Amino acid sequence: MKLERSLIGQIVPPLDEEAMAAARARQDTLTKPPGSLGRLEALSIQLAGIYGDPTPTIEHKVIITMAGDHGVIAEGVSAFPQEITAQMVTNFLNGGAAINVLARHVGARVVVVDMGVAADIGPSPGLVSKKVAPGTRNLAQGPAMTRKQALEALKSGAEIVESELGCGLDILAVGEMGIGNTTPSTAIAAAFTGQPPVELAGRGTGVDDGGLSRKIKAVARGLAVNQPDPDDAIDVLAKVGGFEIGGMAGAMLAAAAHGRPVMVDGFIATAAAMVGVGLAPTMQPYLIAGHLSNERGHRAMLDWLGLDPLLDLDMRLGEGTGAALSFSLAEAACKVLSEMATFAEAGLSGGNEGS
Amino acid sequence: MKLERSLIGQIVPPLDEEAMAAARARQDTLTKPPGSLGRLEALSIQLAGIYGDPTPTIEHKVIITMAGDHGVIAEGVSAFPQEITAQMVTNFLNGGAAINVLARHVGARVVVVDMGVAADIGPSPGLVSKKVAPGTRNLAQGPAMTRKQALEALKSGAEIVESELGCGLDILAVGEMGIGNTTPSTAIAAAFTGQPPVELAGRGTGVDDGGLSRKIKAVARGLAVNQPDPDDAIDVLAKVGGFEIGGMAGAMLAAAAHGRPVMVDGFIATAAAMVGVGLAPTMQPYLIAGHLSNERGHRAMLDWLGLDPLLDLDMRLGEGTGAALSFSLAEAACKVLSEMATFAEAGLSGGNEGS
Repeated sequence: MKLERSLIGQIVPPLDEEAMAAARARQDTLTKPPGSLGRLEALSIQLAGIYGDPTPTIEHKVIITMAGDHGVIAEGVSAFPQEITAQMVTNFLNGGAAINVLARHVGARVVVVDMGVAADIGPSPGLVSKKVAPGTRNLAQGPAMTRKQALEALKSGAEIVESELGCGLDILAVGEMGIGNTTPSTAIAAAFTGQPPVELAGRGTGVDDGGLSRKIKAVARGLAVNQPDPDDAIDVLAKVGGFEIGGMAGAMLAAAAHGRPVMVDGFIATAAAMVGVGLAPTMQPYLIAGHLSNERGHRAMLDWLGLDPLLDLDMRLGEGTGAALSFSLAEAACKVLSEMATFAEAGLSGGNEGS
Repeated sequence: MKLERSLIGQIVPPLDEEAMAAARARQDTLTKPPGSLGRLEALSIQLAGIYGDPTPTIEHKVIITMAGDHGVIAEGVSAFPQEITAQMVTNFLNGGAAINVLARHVGARVVVVDMGVAADIGPSPGLVSKKVAPGTRNLAQGPAMTRKQALEALKSGAEIVESELGCGLDILAVGEMGIGNTTPSTAIAAAFTGQPPVELAGRGTGVDDGGLSRKIKAVARGLAVNQPDPDDAIDVLAKVGGFEIGGMAGAMLAAAAHGRPVMVDGFIATAAAMVGVGLAPTMQPYLIAGHLSNERGHRAMLDWLGLDPLLDLDMRLGEGTGAALSFSLAEAACKVLSEMATFAEAGLSGGNEGS
């Protein structure tokens, strides 16, 4: 109970209203029509509030990609075999996956974590091992994990962020890899939003109609069998979640607690954010929705969180890929705020440009 | 007539179908579920076709920002005084404008061009002078320019691109600055789409209801007085266009003729693209819509061009800012295609990841 209390009690400070007011005022002095940079302006003000700095800069961008396996694949909910999870972890470590390419493109570093892969990956340079267990149990037949395991996953996620802060971490994204993990994410979304699984479940990597139908049934059965309590986020995570989802939620909580913004990736990362906000609602202002996933149900989850996605590129890969692309927008927002000339500096007629 | 023929006849080669097929095939071998990177995949295939290279790379990114003034401001269509155009050109040259900040962020170079500013800016390091005349005439009362001036603007735009190719130009965006220039852009959009000005006109930098009403009337009068012929894009440009709009269209045509993709910016750049496609419909496959402007009518213009915007961030600044942000997505698309490991390379079970 002590650990539980310390996690839930992660003190997330409110945004710095003074820095936000100063950033807002500065935006209106920059050489452009007020408001003409749209969401970049709003984002710059949010970031000013998070960092407590009216002209913030982002240097160290970190993507923590967490892997875990899922007992629920026994229900035939995925188009792909479980061994892919471990193989993709190796791909991440070798730098060949989409997240590696996009992280290099935006100048972010990738931290790869085994939160609960079913295979023994063995010690590998660059791999952070926080394996709670070799995969969850089948959530359609009982709890995916024990409450103790859920807490361990959350705590491990927080620990990784605390360790990465030492290497520099100005903005965090959490990504994931785990065959079957849109199923627990759908269950989490259903538990919190109260919407029926059929409205939330999508095709993941591309299951056919039969697979989609099995997935909807597995989620419905998981909710009926387990009765997760939406007022107790740890209960939701334990009963219908996943180890990587718990790790992601813990990482997000720790980042917010340390005053760092969290760029939320797609469907699974958003389920983790729901667990995090369920634990500590004060985390919400630290979240930025990186993109809208092509996966059905994602919009409803973002709505529940009160987030509006920056990008909408029909992506549905996970790993942190959508969030990585949006790191570039967050940096752009900060640079506009810090680097643009004001009307006074540029000697402009107090007016504005364009028409 | 010779110049006219050479411009219209800019030979734009069709996209390389073989390179596109190879890129498409390669996308399906990369370590991700097929199609899961959504629009990045489609964009990478388009770029492969443009460059004639199944694994293209983008190095030199160029933004040409063109300035011009507009006689139609006499109708009270803009919230800001004409002198802002020249002052913003100085701001561009000093590196203090939004386009400078965003270009630095994405690693692009900015070329600033005087296509027809009403003030004498004088020779300045970094300024390309192609001034056709010190501002257009009032399009609400007669042609904005002569047909000869329209051709000169188009030719100047093409010349700048041809000169910039020597310094390296892998992808082009054209941006603009010109108090009043959403008014000719609205007129161009109305001329080509046939939609009524009231459906297309927006508030530009932020005119009030009175300004918007005057703008709609000015466009309607311009169309009635001039009767621009939508089957003759030079006629449309001359009668209701602008010098910077002609320069932008010429630059786009030249880029496409040299096998370079064009990232289209917002409302005014899209009007220029309509003129370009009106002259040479074969240019269309070279266009990428960088973003959806917040300006009313932009979606209808993109629809006419058959383009779907990459970003939608409520921006309405112009200068090339939306296109600059999307340069990063074009580069990301190429890198994914070139740098990701294939299933075979990564030793994956021929399956796929996520769920």
